[in-house]
Amino acid sequence: MNTIEPSTTNKHPLIALAAEWILPMTQTPTCDHHDLEAPQWLDNHAIIIQDCKILDILSRDQILARYPDCEITELKGMALMPGLINAHCHAAMSLLRGYSDDLPLHQWLETAIWPVEAQFVDDEFVYQGTQLAIAEMLRGGTTCFQDMYFMPDQIARAAQQSGIRANIGLMVVDSETVWARDASECISKGLSVYDQYKHNSNLTFSFAPHAPYTVSPQTLEKLSTLSFELSLNIHMHLHETAAEVFDYQKKHDIRPLEQLHKLGLLNPQLNAVHMTQLNEQEISWLEETGTHVIHCPQSNMKLASGCCPTGQLLDAGVNLAIGTDGAASNNDLDMLAELQSAALLAKIDCLDPEKLSAYQALYAATMGGAKALGLEDDIGSLEHGKQADIIAIDLNQIETQPVYNPVSQIVYAASRNQVTHVWVAGKQLLNNRQLTSLNESNILNNARSWKDKILENKIVQKQNSEL
Amino acid sequence: MNTIEPSTTNKHPLIALAAEWILPMTQTPTCDHHDLEAPQWLDNHAIIIQDCKILDILSRDQILARYPDCEITELKGMALMPGLINAHCHAAMSLLRGYSDDLPLHQWLETAIWPVEAQFVDDEFVYQGTQLAIAEMLRGGTTCFQDMYFMPDQIARAAQQSGIRANIGLMVVDSETVWARDASECISKGLSVYDQYKHNSNLTFSFAPHAPYTVSPQTLEKLSTLSFELSLNIHMHLHETAAEVFDYQKKHDIRPLEQLHKLGLLNPQLNAVHMTQLNEQEISWLEETGTHVIHCPQSNMKLASGCCPTGQLLDAGVNLAIGTDGAASNNDLDMLAELQSAALLAKIDCLDPEKLSAYQALYAATMGGAKALGLEDDIGSLEHGKQADIIAIDLNQIETQPVYNPVSQIVYAASRNQVTHVWVAGKQLLNNRQLTSLNESNILNNARSWKDKILENKIVQKQNSEL
Repeated sequence: MNTIEPSTTNKHPLIALAAEWILPMTQTPTCDHHDLEAPQWLDNHAIIIQDCKILDILSRDQILARYPDCEITELKGMALMPGLINAHCHAAMSLLRGYSDDLPLHQWLETAIWPVEAQFVDDEFVYQGTQLAIAEMLRGGTTCFQDMYFMPDQIARAAQQSGIRANIGLMVVDSETVWARDASECISKGLSVYDQYKHNSNLTFSFAPHAPYTVSPQTLEKLSTLSFELSLNIHMHLHETAAEVFDYQKKHDIRPLEQLHKLGLLNPQLNAVHMTQLNEQEISWLEETGTHVIHCPQSNMKLASGCCPTGQLLDAGVNLAIGTDGAASNNDLDMLAELQSAALLAKIDCLDPEKLSAYQALYAATMGGAKALGLEDDIGSLEHGKQADIIAIDLNQIETQPVYNPVSQIVYAASRNQVTHVWVAGKQLLNNRQLTSLNESNILNNARSWKDKILENKIVQKQNSEL
Repeated sequence: MNTIEPSTTNKHPLIALAAEWILPMTQTPTCDHHDLEAPQWLDNHAIIIQDCKILDILSRDQILARYPDCEITELKGMALMPGLINAHCHAAMSLLRGYSDDLPLHQWLETAIWPVEAQFVDDEFVYQGTQLAIAEMLRGGTTCFQDMYFMPDQIARAAQQSGIRANIGLMVVDSETVWARDASECISKGLSVYDQYKHNSNLTFSFAPHAPYTVSPQTLEKLSTLSFELSLNIHMHLHETAAEVFDYQKKHDIRPLEQLHKLGLLNPQLNAVHMTQLNEQEISWLEETGTHVIHCPQSNMKLASGCCPTGQLLDAGVNLAIGTDGAASNNDLDMLAELQSAALLAKIDCLDPEKLSAYQALYAATMGGAKALGLEDDIGSLEHGKQADIIAIDLNQIETQPVYNPVSQIVYAASRNQVTHVWVAGKQLLNNRQLTSLNESNILNNARSWKDKILENKIVQKQNSEL
């Protein structure tokens, strides 16, 4: 590992996290994942944190010789790894978790989700829903999420207060919504949210045009220019279902991805979400242009949208990140379950069990996400100089013993409740399963109040329709 | 619900479990799963247990009027449902969890699993491995499992001591194994295990011929006769991969399932496991003969074996149960995750989000399993006179709030650690996440010892091969 001499001024105390296994995620995925001795992890090492950053990673028995004053936290039976990066979420929709299930995407949106959103989504809904989502994500080891929803000011407010790292999507759609009258207003209101929060070190921003069927090529062209000028990413649903691609092509005589390519939008600033419909030509474009693909396996499975060809994308050299999508269609924000689903789905989709190995899935959920967000110099792996976004997973439990290979146990056997400690930028946000920056009982009470309000309205509507 | 007058002799105390939601699972799955008001659950009801059985289910406020002497356990924010039934497992293989991953089935078996089994599997391995598995299953809400492995006497011993309900498969293969020299010895040794344990009220037995490629038609014919004479089920891997069916057909000029049909083995006593390769004719046979299908979605995905056509099977009226398979290929025994995977996989496989609804998945994991094991009069649902095999799931957590629909929350959002209490035949085996009948730290120590032994051997072998 990289090492440097400890700071001599020693303004901030040094903290050593000593664990049975450390997964730095610094290696790019290779094919030798069957070798138990491949150094995908370090045994009995420690991470030295100073302030918000990782200072060093060294063997457990060298800590005191090198850092005599450091405070050691012993994490016996635990694995330390980079925080998980949820690269696609609609956090506030956690308030609609389980409101409607087992319907096709467009029917689900048109009959269940959009009507309830039109009636209930306001500042408090987004703020409190985002808090519920952040609480869930921190408890499950997610230290950074990329969001797309209305009222981005409320998303930023909730994220800032919690201490989590976030990329806030500035939602853009052409038609009127609870957030803005049209695309122009989406952009102007979005940019003022960006101006308000851009100096917060844990927050970054992107433009989030909803999808090709809700955002015109003209709007996309404008966003392309702005994203280049302001160095903001673009985060967009794309090729989610076969019907979407078919309808678009029928109307515009071109597939959505080719349209974006013509507009110059395929580039390393684009985070293309879902991508279940891809031909070979399109996969080549993604690779050539450095476009990132955000895979949401559980949402794609539940809505029967289709399979993102993750095996082919990785073979082609496309960067892959993983997202949960919103809890209304998933129905949780559990990145450990999501990356496991990604691995399993890739294998069954290709009928090839070597596709998306355990290590590749974990890499996609950490470094893959960091690259997609343009944050690969700051987060995604554990190495000197990077932000201390770290999680501890307790493998010393019945469900994950014995441990031949901690990577396998984390990907295929561990569950979210085994995440015991979470640090973001060196600040501990989960301590032995307890949230340190959020009031859990307030969040639960708010969730129940929203449910009561929404269900009551549903019953009144039903009674009215029966009169 | 059915109710009867409480016993007047009152030999055993009455226990009332009062919960926010009760899912009796007495309704067969219907298509109206989109209606939030369909009575798939009861709000604020209680289950009255007397001795090992369910005496009554009634509204929370009627308990004291009807059962003034009963002891009430309040389960606020919790859902009560029948214990999950894991219809296919190789429990002892939990000791090989994560030993080898991301390989095709036959390569995985031939290069990793079979060699280590040949060297290490003995009575203690099976006994201690089964204990590890039972501890995991109870902690995850599984109250009954159907197993298939060597040394069934040790499986029965571990199950009996733990108090879990189990169907022990009496493994049969033609060639020599660590358990027996040939099929005849498998049968004779198996029958003596059956004689030894058959009077234990929580244990049942079945014959477990491994697969068509390891058990000859002659052996199957013998088992067919015996299973009829002794009223024992047959539990068998079948049509797990396309290669298996292709190779069998090449050799025998008939597909395995048709061979079994000719031998009279397709009947309500057969539990056919995996079944990823099925044509329409075969699905009709399954329905006509009352054969049960055991679906192991995560194992089939991880090994890239193929998709069991669960949607078509349910449409045809075939009974479906769910199993985890062994933890060497899964890599856990988490039935909540498994039934969620079953729902998600059915939808993506058929590209139809209405396939295998949340309720249908939960039904398969409870009543479906009970029917497959021939125990539908005793377990699988919560109703008067059935065994008190009950689990409590705490939905009052960040990850499962708000609750519009407890069925949706349990299937799509809850995780195993939210199972707080487990009763089998009225006996509490998990109390607020603590195992009452098993010594957790002994089990963990045993698991680590086996791992050390197995890894040490691997290193020695590697050194020898390098000399």
